[in-house]
Amino acid sequence: MTQKEAAVKGIITKEMEACATYEGVTPEKVREEVAKGHAVIPCNVLHKSIKPRVIGNAFKTKINVNLGISKDSSCYDAEMDKVKCAVDMNADAIMDLSSYGDTTGFRRELIDTCPAMIGTVPVYDAVIHFNKDLKDITSDDFIEVVKNHVKDGVDFITVHCGITRRTMDRLEQQSRLTNIVSRGGALIFAWMKMTGLENPFYERYDEILDICREYDVTISLGDGCRPGSINDATDLCQIDELVTLGELTNRAMARDVQVMVEGPGHMRLNEIEANMTVQQRLCSGAPFYVLGPLVTDVAPGYDHITSAIGGAIAASHGAAFLCYVTPAEHLRLPDLDDMKEGIIASKIAAHAADLAKGVCGAANWDYNMSKARQELDFDKMFELAIDGGVKGRKYRETSPNEENTCSMCGKFCSIRNMNKALNGETVDIL
Amino acid sequence: MTQKEAAVKGIITKEMEACATYEGVTPEKVREEVAKGHAVIPCNVLHKSIKPRVIGNAFKTKINVNLGISKDSSCYDAEMDKVKCAVDMNADAIMDLSSYGDTTGFRRELIDTCPAMIGTVPVYDAVIHFNKDLKDITSDDFIEVVKNHVKDGVDFITVHCGITRRTMDRLEQQSRLTNIVSRGGALIFAWMKMTGLENPFYERYDEILDICREYDVTISLGDGCRPGSINDATDLCQIDELVTLGELTNRAMARDVQVMVEGPGHMRLNEIEANMTVQQRLCSGAPFYVLGPLVTDVAPGYDHITSAIGGAIAASHGAAFLCYVTPAEHLRLPDLDDMKEGIIASKIAAHAADLAKGVCGAANWDYNMSKARQELDFDKMFELAIDGGVKGRKYRETSPNEENTCSMCGKFCSIRNMNKALNGETVDIL
Repeated sequence: MTQKEAAVKGIITKEMEACATYEGVTPEKVREEVAKGHAVIPCNVLHKSIKPRVIGNAFKTKINVNLGISKDSSCYDAEMDKVKCAVDMNADAIMDLSSYGDTTGFRRELIDTCPAMIGTVPVYDAVIHFNKDLKDITSDDFIEVVKNHVKDGVDFITVHCGITRRTMDRLEQQSRLTNIVSRGGALIFAWMKMTGLENPFYERYDEILDICREYDVTISLGDGCRPGSINDATDLCQIDELVTLGELTNRAMARDVQVMVEGPGHMRLNEIEANMTVQQRLCSGAPFYVLGPLVTDVAPGYDHITSAIGGAIAASHGAAFLCYVTPAEHLRLPDLDDMKEGIIASKIAAHAADLAKGVCGAANWDYNMSKARQELDFDKMFELAIDGGVKGRKYRETSPNEENTCSMCGKFCSIRNMNKALNGETVDIL
Repeated sequence: MTQKEAAVKGIITKEMEACATYEGVTPEKVREEVAKGHAVIPCNVLHKSIKPRVIGNAFKTKINVNLGISKDSSCYDAEMDKVKCAVDMNADAIMDLSSYGDTTGFRRELIDTCPAMIGTVPVYDAVIHFNKDLKDITSDDFIEVVKNHVKDGVDFITVHCGITRRTMDRLEQQSRLTNIVSRGGALIFAWMKMTGLENPFYERYDEILDICREYDVTISLGDGCRPGSINDATDLCQIDELVTLGELTNRAMARDVQVMVEGPGHMRLNEIEANMTVQQRLCSGAPFYVLGPLVTDVAPGYDHITSAIGGAIAASHGAAFLCYVTPAEHLRLPDLDDMKEGIIASKIAAHAADLAKGVCGAANWDYNMSKARQELDFDKMFELAIDGGVKGRKYRETSPNEENTCSMCGKFCSIRNMNKALNGETVDIL
């Protein structure tokens, strides 16, 4: 029985209980949201090491970390180091985007050892797994790769079902600046172009639902047509695909298969709220999993910032799950430091949104931090800091002349001076 | 004649013309906004090296860089290096917050050499200039420091006029978590507490208007009661002060003295729009100059990101001028690298807002960047990048196996594959 089916039947599973404890809400609240399809608990019955998390607008915003072996960065151990680091930094989910070498071994080790939710994009693996180039992959091959991933224990899979032959026609008629920038979406498009066939993930969606239902794997409906530039945001291609994704969401929900929907992309910040509203309506409130949105195209090297801006706004308006973006986006495969920067930026965006939404417990964290700041208790501040105090302690090595201030203000410190003034003490500055 | 007075009389000054050229709008548009008080051109008649810029909601969002000599970081040359770097990075304004050593010499050198708008906070300098501790400074001393700065040629001064004895009573009755976190605001509060007197910047505001009017110095009304924590945002103290700042704005406008208003601070992202609306209404549309807003308290070491999120939202809803925040905020005086990170983050926020507002020319930049990306023209991308390609070129040292891709995707590159597919070519992946 899937979490969804249990929830609909009024059953509270042990996974729902674990999620409720983590969220600080009642198990019944989790059950209700899962029953409506407004939340998912990606949790393959075979993933024994998992600590389940619930993804939905009513709960803490979750973040995902992408990693995996690729041809240009093919060190197995380096990617496993990233896994350990991501887990230590409390990433909620890890997507294994491996596309080179021993993809199966890597995936299995990840699932054996990792308490975070694990997602994959089977289409990346097809070429590697069968060692056949894209044009020679068959529809059956694609389905077989999905089965392999599901049977290995992944918790959610991205399938680019939304690109149909109609999408292809529309895309070729439109004048998009950046066409399709989804890696999986482009592979599917190229395969369809070369073979003349319909998208197998669309055509054989019912089979995929059956496979996922058996192991309670959550479907993440890939957005092949997400805008890859500010110019293309909220355009006909994007919204046309979202309509298809809405239909596919409803079909999954009707079968009690857990489902979430992937979203933009590059987007002006003033378009984000409307996009969240439209997705929630078209996709019956299914959780929205966004990559960004990146609120400008012009900042290569800083896309963890452009996406933190968009992600915070998106999550405050309904997105439930943020895919991290690192400073290396558009430039290179992120290294460990890039990954850390990306995780922190995403966590900032997620928490800023949780504060805005009034999510349970979110405001306490800020209250305690500012109380420590008011008390000039730097050790407490570092203990509470989002990065576990790493940057703060480093910065603190630049020690101030005046104890319990920082080198920015010294005796001009407003907190020091207000504390003295309110106590009726003389405020000395010289 | 101030820019405001000229504008009201229908005169287009050479400064308005220079601003119009920079903005890509007509000089008449600049004149209109300045006449209404919805925009300012901070430009002291004595600051001969300036390239004038207009600050207002109808124009490109501007950014300010704080620097200056302080006791804990007292190297004159290091701060001058920051000035050169900030100018090279096209900072629109520099605030000299020097509070140690030869503050006068530093300020004068800055004004002699620097094309950016120069702002100061005279209250910081009073203790240093007169070499008397805070309690011994007189009301006349404060006014004299203002005169000194104005006569040295600064383009705008922050004066904390909004803290009155009524504010003090209210602040002591409320239960703010972080009291006053404005450095200047806390100094004024402490001075008032120690002397029992009214705030001289409030009491003698007309004198200050006269001084500023003579040299066309723009008044920046400091927000002593800006929230220093999420907990204190949009509270009674903050809004009470804003009401006072609204009155003072109107008094400046009535005398044709250019005026802008400073704003928050720490704030939940869903409160930002309302704050912008209230400021625009209470302050007759005067430009809003915001520090942040920082959308969470919990990220010391990353407050350039928390403030980029808030700044982008604020500017898209009416703020005209963003004070940069660096990763060192709350921790230490920023070094040169911190400053660079802060400038880039602010510029990202400013540009993201300009895109959202549809400011003239903003979208072209993104279009050209994404066109270069679509053409896999990395050199062009770096040329257009917000940091002049510094990070991009560094990242590019990790070279991919496949030419004209990056090491993130290699042959899986969606742009490569879509370009091939749309050309009818075979898409090889292996």
